[in-house]
Amino acid sequence: MTTQLTNLLGLVAASLTTLAFLPQVIRTWRLRSAQDLSLGMFSLLCVGVALWLVYGLLTGNLPIIAANGATLVLCGILLYFKLAFKK
Amino acid sequence: MTTQLTNLLGLVAASLTTLAFLPQVIRTWRLRSAQDLSLGMFSLLCVGVALWLVYGLLTGNLPIIAANGATLVLCGILLYFKLAFKK
Repeated sequence: MTTQLTNLLGLVAASLTTLAFLPQVIRTWRLRSAQDLSLGMFSLLCVGVALWLVYGLLTGNLPIIAANGATLVLCGILLYFKLAFKK
Repeated sequence: MTTQLTNLLGLVAASLTTLAFLPQVIRTWRLRSAQDLSLGMFSLLCVGVALWLVYGLLTGNLPIIAANGATLVLCGILLYFKLAFKK
């Protein structure tokens, strides 16, 4: 497989793992319920993704910056929902 | 920052974003409820992480293989829970 195709594969993979959080944001907003969501999961994800973002900035890797920047926003919203919709 | 420290940062970031799914697996198993979880999120995550795994295998990148292999197992379990605990 050529490097170009491998890079495209990485780009598609990064897009999917970032976009994946969007249906969860929509579902949680609609249900106004985050009972089943794990606070630990979204806390760890936010810290981990933020570190990925710092890693991207330090290494000047634009795809890592873009993917993790967007993921951090979505995970941050979900963490907020988890705390806000606490019953 | 030295390359060694930057690599360590990436390693910590990868460990956190992988381990993050563990508390969700534990919570969903305990609650036997996945009502609030988005099927779209875990479907997209499984496909995206699987593509990351293929990307890691093609580029021979061991950290990407290890992190995404473990994440795929945890996300796969959550996708199964979402389907199994459907009410």
